[in-house]
Amino acid sequence: MKIAVLPGDGIGPEIVAEAVKVLDALKLDLQMESAPVGGAAYEAAGHPLPPSTLKLAQESDAILFGAVGDWKYDTLERALRPEQAILGLRKALGLFANFRPAICYKELTHASSLKPELVAGLDILIIRELTGDIYFGQPRGRRVSPDGHFPGAEEAFDTMRYTRPEIERIGHVAFQAAQKRGKRVTSVDKANVLETFQLWKDVMTEVGKQYPDVQLDHMYVDNAAMQLVKEPKRFDVVVTGNMFGDILSDEASMLTGSIGMLPSASLNDKKQGLYEPSHGSAPDIAGKGIANPLATILSAAMMLRFSLGHEAAAQKIEAAVQKVLAQGLRTPDIYSEGTTKVGTQQMGDAVVAAL
Amino acid sequence: MKIAVLPGDGIGPEIVAEAVKVLDALKLDLQMESAPVGGAAYEAAGHPLPPSTLKLAQESDAILFGAVGDWKYDTLERALRPEQAILGLRKALGLFANFRPAICYKELTHASSLKPELVAGLDILIIRELTGDIYFGQPRGRRVSPDGHFPGAEEAFDTMRYTRPEIERIGHVAFQAAQKRGKRVTSVDKANVLETFQLWKDVMTEVGKQYPDVQLDHMYVDNAAMQLVKEPKRFDVVVTGNMFGDILSDEASMLTGSIGMLPSASLNDKKQGLYEPSHGSAPDIAGKGIANPLATILSAAMMLRFSLGHEAAAQKIEAAVQKVLAQGLRTPDIYSEGTTKVGTQQMGDAVVAAL
Ligand SMILES: CC(C)[C@H](C(=O)O)[C@@H](O)C(=O)O
Ligand SMILES: CC(C)[C@H](C(=O)O)[C@@H](O)C(=O)O
Repeated sequence: MKIAVLPGDGIGPEIVAEAVKVLDALKLDLQMESAPVGGAAYEAAGHPLPPSTLKLAQESDAILFGAVGDWKYDTLERALRPEQAILGLRKALGLFANFRPAICYKELTHASSLKPELVAGLDILIIRELTGDIYFGQPRGRRVSPDGHFPGAEEAFDTMRYTRPEIERIGHVAFQAAQKRGKRVTSVDKANVLETFQLWKDVMTEVGKQYPDVQLDHMYVDNAAMQLVKEPKRFDVVVTGNMFGDILSDEASMLTGSIGMLPSASLNDKKQGLYEPSHGSAPDIAGKGIANPLATILSAAMMLRFSLGHEAAAQKIEAAVQKVLAQGLRTPDIYSEGTTKVGTQQMGDAVVAAL
Repeated sequence: MKIAVLPGDGIGPEIVAEAVKVLDALKLDLQMESAPVGGAAYEAAGHPLPPSTLKLAQESDAILFGAVGDWKYDTLERALRPEQAILGLRKALGLFANFRPAICYKELTHASSLKPELVAGLDILIIRELTGDIYFGQPRGRRVSPDGHFPGAEEAFDTMRYTRPEIERIGHVAFQAAQKRGKRVTSVDKANVLETFQLWKDVMTEVGKQYPDVQLDHMYVDNAAMQLVKEPKRFDVVVTGNMFGDILSDEASMLTGSIGMLPSASLNDKKQGLYEPSHGSAPDIAGKGIANPLATILSAAMMLRFSLGHEAAAQKIEAAVQKVLAQGLRTPDIYSEGTTKVGTQQMGDAVVAAL
């Protein structure tokens, strides 16, 4: 089994190093190869996703990804900015199914902005479609406005689109995930305004009929953004499009209060996957040895489970993370009085020790 | 001064009746005329926005709007559903500037999902562009997919678009609002992915140069959805497009814990405006006399201020609402132990008494 290790920018290299340490300690037969991505790749090779990095990713069974981005690349033209690497990988590998768990760990309930009773035991799985929608829809660009409020004015435009099979396949992913959990799917749309999401809703309803053991309900995106705040525990699996999923998955992560703990997976139909923490590159704390590596370590566990067929090893990692939390070890982002503050490497070492 | 009174569906008629009672008590020279809208208008006249209602709205200085929508209209074809009335009014009257305050009243801090210290004193103004973006962009519809992942498949699509003058005018609204408040504007975009919002960001930056006394910063929409949860008090004025504004303004309202208190205004360039509570039609509690009329009463205050030139009367209403809260009067949605539970009419009467 081959893993492409793409550390990226900011805290990426530090947190990925700890996940690699944990994978090494498991003594599985894994071949890991590193390559630059994001701003680091732009510096090294003039492009955020150089051909050699893309080739490595395509030839691997899984990608362990750190994070990309830094303020210093903000002035680059869009095609060269770090986040193009992640969009490029999603597109090139067809990683259409993004799994974003929002879990509130017992020990970290107090860290949430929300009152403890609203988030204690929270366990939502957001499934975001990742290769369609307005992210990739053509045509897009700038032009002279052909009509509308100000014909003749400078205009920018993008196209939102979904085809029936794109909606069907992410629908199946969501219903099958729900079968293994709470057996409820909430499909989030904006069918009252958008043609694209009327089709989304229609197709989700049809797909849902094939899963009579799963309860489907539909919710408008504005209402979903509210219900996440009001009563997050009402959700089990949430499935939505690329744009709404971007917003709602980040909102849900932040609700837990410990986004530094949350992994993610992005899969294609061959179970090839990209695994990355839900948080970003945090350039402000890069190099200080204080970043929380647990989201990346838990992403490595998801990788073992979904792409590498090592369920037992995945569970071992997850149990080890639970154990270090129970031991009271905390990086600064999840620290609270009465616990023990540790750095990035110490946290990684503790997980290895707990394996 | 002429006001079109459009009560609509669900709790709409009950809450609008209380706002009208308050306006009557002020003894201003206001001419109010009612008309059906939404599901009620569909039942009465076969269309959610009948020509006579639209004509009344166009000829009025302001519209006092209740709410529209009910599950029972969900099976109607899109063009006849209640929410088309609100989209139709926005478009026909050019109501491009939507003001959505998210305020946390001192007396109601405990009602928030968030910890009290995070929301005490919260006062955000979200300014949402309301006549452009993917809400109204053409072309849109269903077709055979011309390219992409599944050429030949059934596809639905919509067009996101903004012209420079549309962004400029909402930008000026936001900066001028900020000048009267905390002098900070956060422009929310998704310039890292969308052409439309790269133009948005560019134009906001240009407009911002004309307001050197206001500090402008830019935030991606996914980050904004997180920061609202993490640290809502960091925001003063937030300006964004129609789609992102729909989501973020509802998220922000719910953060306050008392969406039943939050008014809204939607204005055009002639200061004609539509005023409505931020909450919806709540068909589940309609007719029970328990709905909170304060958001609608406060919307009437905004109407007096923005469209009718009665600043003193607006302040009188706002002071009266503060007073009834201080008296401990609460409708069930904002009730807590130690306060006095009242119904819709009693609450309206109490505001009149406090004037
Ligand atoms: C960096 C950006 C393009 C990306 C997205 O919008 O998908 C990020 O926010 C994410 O969610 O992975
Ligand atoms: C009813 C719907 C079309 C509307 C919108 O999306 O604008 C509503 O959610 C709102 O925010 O006023």
